[in-house]
Amino acid sequence: MQSNNTKQKTAISPTRADNYPEWYQQVIKAAELAEVSPVRGCMIIKPWGYALWENIQRILDEQFKATGHKNLYFPLFIPMSFLQKEAEHIKGFAKECAVVTHHRLVTNAEGRLEPASPLEDPYIIRPTSETIIGEAFSRWIQSYRDLPLLVNQWANIVRWELRTRLFLRTTEFLWQEGHTAHATAQEAQAETMQMLDIYARFADEYMAMPVIKGEKTASERFPGAVNTYCIEAMMQDKKALQAGTSHFLGQTFSKAFNIKFLNAQSQEDYTWTTSWGVSTRLIGGLIMTHSDDNGLVLPPKLAPTHVVILPIIHKEELRGEIMAYCQQLAEALRRVLYAGRAVQVEIDQRDMAGGEKAWSWVKKGVPLRLEIGNKEYQNHAVFLGRRDKEYKDRVSLKKEEFLANVVTLLDDIQQCLWQRAQLFQQNNIVTINNKADFYDFFTQGEGGFAKAHWNGDAGVEAQVKSDLGVTIRCIPLEAPAAGKCIFTGEASSQAVLFAKAY
Amino acid sequence: MQSNNTKQKTAISPTRADNYPEWYQQVIKAAELAEVSPVRGCMIIKPWGYALWENIQRILDEQFKATGHKNLYFPLFIPMSFLQKEAEHIKGFAKECAVVTHHRLVTNAEGRLEPASPLEDPYIIRPTSETIIGEAFSRWIQSYRDLPLLVNQWANIVRWELRTRLFLRTTEFLWQEGHTAHATAQEAQAETMQMLDIYARFADEYMAMPVIKGEKTASERFPGAVNTYCIEAMMQDKKALQAGTSHFLGQTFSKAFNIKFLNAQSQEDYTWTTSWGVSTRLIGGLIMTHSDDNGLVLPPKLAPTHVVILPIIHKEELRGEIMAYCQQLAEALRRVLYAGRAVQVEIDQRDMAGGEKAWSWVKKGVPLRLEIGNKEYQNHAVFLGRRDKEYKDRVSLKKEEFLANVVTLLDDIQQCLWQRAQLFQQNNIVTINNKADFYDFFTQGEGGFAKAHWNGDAGVEAQVKSDLGVTIRCIPLEAPAAGKCIFTGEASSQAVLFAKAY
Repeated sequence: MQSNNTKQKTAISPTRADNYPEWYQQVIKAAELAEVSPVRGCMIIKPWGYALWENIQRILDEQFKATGHKNLYFPLFIPMSFLQKEAEHIKGFAKECAVVTHHRLVTNAEGRLEPASPLEDPYIIRPTSETIIGEAFSRWIQSYRDLPLLVNQWANIVRWELRTRLFLRTTEFLWQEGHTAHATAQEAQAETMQMLDIYARFADEYMAMPVIKGEKTASERFPGAVNTYCIEAMMQDKKALQAGTSHFLGQTFSKAFNIKFLNAQSQEDYTWTTSWGVSTRLIGGLIMTHSDDNGLVLPPKLAPTHVVILPIIHKEELRGEIMAYCQQLAEALRRVLYAGRAVQVEIDQRDMAGGEKAWSWVKKGVPLRLEIGNKEYQNHAVFLGRRDKEYKDRVSLKKEEFLANVVTLLDDIQQCLWQRAQLFQQNNIVTINNKADFYDFFTQGEGGFAKAHWNGDAGVEAQVKSDLGVTIRCIPLEAPAAGKCIFTGEASSQAVLFAKAY
Repeated sequence: MQSNNTKQKTAISPTRADNYPEWYQQVIKAAELAEVSPVRGCMIIKPWGYALWENIQRILDEQFKATGHKNLYFPLFIPMSFLQKEAEHIKGFAKECAVVTHHRLVTNAEGRLEPASPLEDPYIIRPTSETIIGEAFSRWIQSYRDLPLLVNQWANIVRWELRTRLFLRTTEFLWQEGHTAHATAQEAQAETMQMLDIYARFADEYMAMPVIKGEKTASERFPGAVNTYCIEAMMQDKKALQAGTSHFLGQTFSKAFNIKFLNAQSQEDYTWTTSWGVSTRLIGGLIMTHSDDNGLVLPPKLAPTHVVILPIIHKEELRGEIMAYCQQLAEALRRVLYAGRAVQVEIDQRDMAGGEKAWSWVKKGVPLRLEIGNKEYQNHAVFLGRRDKEYKDRVSLKKEEFLANVVTLLDDIQQCLWQRAQLFQQNNIVTINNKADFYDFFTQGEGGFAKAHWNGDAGVEAQVKSDLGVTIRCIPLEAPAAGKCIFTGEASSQAVLFAKAY
C-alpha cells in the first residue's frame, strides 16, 4: 500500500490506499483485461485477460491429464427435474438459476420481438453439472472395471448473482469442473485431496499466490457435498478470496442418480463421487495479489508476453537499423525456453509517444520491458525495466548479457512476487485468544485473517457473520491443536481461520 | 462401400451400403465419440470425441494467432433488442432462439420446481455473436489506428433445431467465431478469403478431407452477409457437407451498430466487417469422409492416439517381461516427433480378450496397432496393424525397423486417406448439360455433385430444391467459364455445384 508521505503520481487512480475496490476496477480497465457488458452481470473478457485464462487452462489441463483425467463436454442445459433429485442441491442453486422457457422469437403487433413457442419442460442453464453428469455416470458405470471414472470439462457457467464484480463474481463465468466416481470412500477422498493439492501448487508455483488449504465448515459446504475443501488466498486489502474448491460428495449424487456398480465380488454398491473446480475468478485473485498503484503485475509463468520491446525512433533515418536490431533481439529471445515454452516477445510498433507506450505495458503488467533507441542499437545493449521494480529503476545491459540472463530474471521476478505475497500473508494472520480482541481486530484494527478457536457450533459462526460480516474461511489442514473456543469457552479441537471475504 | 458378393461380417452393423444414416450413428457409438443427452437435441461429447475437438482447436488456434487474431470471450446472452437492430439477421435466427425469461426457481404447492423472477428484458442465448460483438466494436474502434481489429472466440452456440443428428446438427454445438473490422472493403474481402483458405487447407492437410471452395448463392447466405463463402466436402453417400463458412459482411453490422472510425484524413466512415466459423460439425465430416464398415478411421494428424500397444499375455509368468517390453516401446515412440508433437501412445492393459481389445481400437480408428505377445518380445519385434488396411493384413516388423519408420507410416496413412477421399470426390462430380439428365442424375442415378450452368435466378434454384431436395452448394472459385443455363437456356457466367446436403 501507498506509504509515502509525499504523494507520488501513480498510473492508477485511485490508489489502493485511497479506494481499494475502485482501484481494482481501474487496474482491470487500464490493463484491458475485461469490461462490463451490456448483459447484466456478464463481462467481456478482452484479449489480454483471455490470454491469461488460456495460460491458466493450459497448465491446469496438463496436470489434470497427467493425473488420468479426460476432458469431455456436457450440455449447457439441465432439465429442472434433475435438480429436483437432490434436495440440498436445489436449495443451494434455485435462487440463482437462469431459466430457458421458450425456443423462438416472434415480432408482435408493435414490431417488437417477444418469446414464443414455450417449452413444456423449461431448462435451467448449468450453475454446475453434478446432476447431468450424474445421470450419465449411472449409465456409463456398470462394474468395478469402469472405475475410477475421471473426467473434466472446461465450460461456461451461469449463476444469477445480484451483486457482481469483474472476474470475482459474474453472472456468467468460465471454469473447469472435474467429476469423478470411485469404488471406495477412501479412493474418492484421496482424489479430493489430490485435486486440492494440484490447485494449491498451481496457485503457489504459477500464480505466485500463496494459499491456505483447509476444510469448509458445514454452513459453507457445496450444496450436496459431505466435505468441501478449499484454497484461500489473502488479497492486499487483507480480505480472503476462495480460489478453488474440491468436494468429497460421498454417495449423495450416487444415490440421487443411482450410480451403482458391481464390485469384484459381484455385489452391488453405490459409487463415491467427487467434484472440483476453479474459474476465471482466479484472475481476480491474481490481480489483487500482485498489482500495485501503477497497474497490473503479472507473474512471469502466467504472463502472455514476457518481454516487450519498445523501439524508440528519434531519427527517422535510423528507423531501419533500430527495427532490424529489435527483430534480431526478438528472434534470439524466442529461441530461449522459459517454464516449458518459448519466451513470449512482442515488439510494440504503435505510432505513439515513447513514455505513453512504455507506461501502457507497465499497466498491463509485462515482466520485462526493453527500450531500444539509437544508443542501445549502437552499443549492442538494451535498456531494461522490470515490472516488480520502480519505473525509474531501469538499467542498461549488454544485449548478450541480457539474453544469457533472461530466464534468471524471469525466475527472479516470479520468486520476488511470491515472497512479497507470502510475507504479506504471514504478517496478516493473527492468532487471537479472546472474543473482545477478535471483535476489535475486525472493527478497530487493520483487519487480516484471525486464527481462533471455535467450538464447531453453527450458531456461533452465524452470530460472528451477522455481527462483523466475517466468516470462517477454512479449518486449516495443518495438524490440529486443541484449545478453548474464544466465543463460548467450550473445548475446541482446532483453531480455524476467520476473515472478511470476497 | 460394401461390394463383395459374399457378405463379410463387419464390426459396424448396418454397413454403409445397407443403411448409411444408421451406420453413421453406430460408428459414433462404437467409437464412443458422443451420445444423445437427456436434453432435447443436445449431445454429450465423450472423451474420444472431445480429444478430436481439442486437436482441431489446437491446430486452428495456432493458425488464427499466426495471422494476427486474438482470442477473447463475449457473454452467452444477447439482449433481444440487439437482434432487433438488423432485419435480415432476425429473420435468419428468430425461429431457433432459446430464450431466457426467468432467473430463479421456486418450489410450487405440488412440490415441483417452477420458474420465478421474470426478467424485464428476456435474453436469447447466442446463435452467433455478430450483434453483441458489433456493439463492443462500436465502442472499441475510434480511428484507423484501431484497425484492423482481429478477434476470435471459442464458444458454445445454441440454435433450436427441430431435426438433430450427432455432430452434424445439434441444438447446442461448440465452435469458433472470428470477427474482424477493417478500414476498407478490399481489406475485409481479403480477410474473408484468407480465413476461407485457412479452413480449406486445414480440411485438406489435417482432416484429409478435400473440399471445394466457393461462394454461396444469395438464398444460402448468412443472414446479414453481403457474400458468404464456404468449403464443401463430399461424404461417402455423395451428399455434401458445408464444413466451414467465411462471411464478408460489408457494412451491414457496422451500420446496425454504428461501428465508425476516423480515417487518416479525419473523415468518419463505417468499418467493413467479416465473420467466419467452423464447429463440432467438422467431426461429423471427418467420420463420414473416412470411416468404413469396421468403424471410425482417423487421419493421423488429428488422432488423439497414434499408436496403441496391446500386450497379449498367454503365460502369466511372462507378464512382467512383456509389460516391460511394451513400456520401453512406448517410451521410445514418445521420443519421436510427428506433425509437430510427440507420437501419442497408449498401452491397453484392460483385462479383456485380445481380439475384442484389438477390435475396440479398430472401431476407434487408431492409425497403428501393435500386438505384443511372447513371440514379439522374444524376437524384438512388433505385430503391426494399420487402420487403413484390412484387419487381417497385419505384418511382423523388427522393433527398430518400426521405430525408424513410424513417422513414414503415419504420413503414408494420412496420404492414403486423402487420396482415397480425393478420388471419390473427383469420380462423383459430374458435369451435366441438360435439365433431363440433371433430374435423372438426382432421381435415377447414384447421386453426387452435379456441375451445371445456372442463370442466377433464385426462382429456378427454389424449383430445383422443391423438386429434388437439391441445393446449390456453391459457385466454385475456380476461373469462370460462360455457358447456358440448363434450366432456362439463358446465358450463364459460370457452372455451379448442385447436391443434396446435410
